[in-house]
Amino acid sequence: MSSHHEIADCLLVDWGTSTLRAWVLDSSGEVLVRRTSSDGMGKLKTGDFEGALLALTGDKLRADATTQIIVCGMAGARNGWKEAAYREVPCEPVATGGLTPVETADGRIAVAIVPGLCQLEPADVMRGEETQLAGLIAERGLTDAVVCLPGTHAKWARLEGGRVRCFSTFMTGEMFAVMADHSILRHSLAGDGCDDEAFMSAVATSLETPQQLTGALFSIRATALLEGLGREAARSRLSGLLIGVELAATRNYWEGRTVHLVGTDALAGRYAAAIEFAGGLVERHDAEALTLAGLSRVRDLLREEAG
Amino acid sequence: MSSHHEIADCLLVDWGTSTLRAWVLDSSGEVLVRRTSSDGMGKLKTGDFEGALLALTGDKLRADATTQIIVCGMAGARNGWKEAAYREVPCEPVATGGLTPVETADGRIAVAIVPGLCQLEPADVMRGEETQLAGLIAERGLTDAVVCLPGTHAKWARLEGGRVRCFSTFMTGEMFAVMADHSILRHSLAGDGCDDEAFMSAVATSLETPQQLTGALFSIRATALLEGLGREAARSRLSGLLIGVELAATRNYWEGRTVHLVGTDALAGRYAAAIEFAGGLVERHDAEALTLAGLSRVRDLLREEAG
Repeated sequence: MSSHHEIADCLLVDWGTSTLRAWVLDSSGEVLVRRTSSDGMGKLKTGDFEGALLALTGDKLRADATTQIIVCGMAGARNGWKEAAYREVPCEPVATGGLTPVETADGRIAVAIVPGLCQLEPADVMRGEETQLAGLIAERGLTDAVVCLPGTHAKWARLEGGRVRCFSTFMTGEMFAVMADHSILRHSLAGDGCDDEAFMSAVATSLETPQQLTGALFSIRATALLEGLGREAARSRLSGLLIGVELAATRNYWEGRTVHLVGTDALAGRYAAAIEFAGGLVERHDAEALTLAGLSRVRDLLREEAG
Repeated sequence: MSSHHEIADCLLVDWGTSTLRAWVLDSSGEVLVRRTSSDGMGKLKTGDFEGALLALTGDKLRADATTQIIVCGMAGARNGWKEAAYREVPCEPVATGGLTPVETADGRIAVAIVPGLCQLEPADVMRGEETQLAGLIAERGLTDAVVCLPGTHAKWARLEGGRVRCFSTFMTGEMFAVMADHSILRHSLAGDGCDDEAFMSAVATSLETPQQLTGALFSIRATALLEGLGREAARSRLSGLLIGVELAATRNYWEGRTVHLVGTDALAGRYAAAIEFAGGLVERHDAEALTLAGLSRVRDLLREEAG
């Protein structure tokens, strides 16, 4: 049967900065179709979102009824489709109360955006990760857990009693990118592999002396000039120094605990190795599966409310 | 008398990444003329250096004799005029032994480049600052001192018995620039003034918890989103967090000592305020005057050798 005949009862949408991902669900909540496009929030203006979503999923919509669409991620940012206010921790990672409705030109859809979370002291925000945390709770029963979500802005969160107690964001991924692309270190880096020894040695350095970060970064350049440090080793050292500092800052999260690490890519692999090296325990989870589970959780909450 | 009649006995040249600066000296070592151009090392190819120098100073050269030209700074880097090998610390900041001669097409000049300094453990390099250190010793008699040289790559050096015992480089200035221009923080920063309170509070934060740097940087963004942190305050906070981490890393240099701070610009002013806040004592020095004094010291050494 062609997917054109699999009409949506509900659409779940993960709208990130670079990728738009949609799942078409039937009335029992089973996924009929999964689709993705490169229409990420980063390249869309506010007026483009509805069209981008319809281009990806329009053929799945019923003509004779309204299809509910639940969206998480950067579509809810200030420069996204519609700003969804943050909910303040401590709180459950998702709730129907905070859902932000979006007016659309197309009458076949009813769109709601999952709000992000904020923390006032110290000031912090997340948008998208809250849905993965809801997935961890809903699908894995992890009501009390420490969670690490690596990425451009890596997040650490503490779950207690099914609520997000607190969280912390680190610019680890973005600092890696801007230093590798725009600083003098760009002359010394290359490749996209990982030199495990260089990486782990740098993690150890930062765990021991995190306050030396800005000096240790220059030392990559100096070692390249003086000792011919290889370009892949230099890149691994940059990554290790930054992840090591993140671990030095998050001891209160991971020390003596199991870290639930969200991600199965190479970056998450480096986090797992670093956390285990530091003495933490790691359990890994598939990020997309958690997002889907979290969005499904919002759908279920809405159904319960509707009776 | 027109400066065209003030013919050089010797030329001293500070060739930085963005600026070329030359002093014309008479036979007694007095400065007759000072000139600058924007022909910094950063925009020149190896073959361009001689022409750039002659364009700035050619009218000062004697036709009937060879004029000695002493050059410090990035002209001696790998991609500069001619690579000048590093001298290894501990050593005197400048010495005639390491001077790197440069062959020129114009027979009226004899060019020598002052080598930089290197340190093997931990790996580090400097190029240009060694001449300012020589100036501190020659002109101020500071044979034993702690020196801080703010900049793109800030340097801290320890002088003992007229020698450079050790030094450390921090990417503070360059990290400020790349984060302000290329990271998500660019949306939250503006201006070029300094919000003293925001700056000093950030210095205090980093001195207390330097391992939190990559998290505190994201907190600038979060505070802008949640509390409307002003753009100048955000910029000052970025500066304060980075300088604070540098001070946390250099306690062994400055604690209980007078820091000889090289620079009179706004950045050096922020360093002075931060060091004093942390409990250090600061004495400030004019960077250009030290460079001139250091280059003059090299000239004097060469004269002594020539007998």
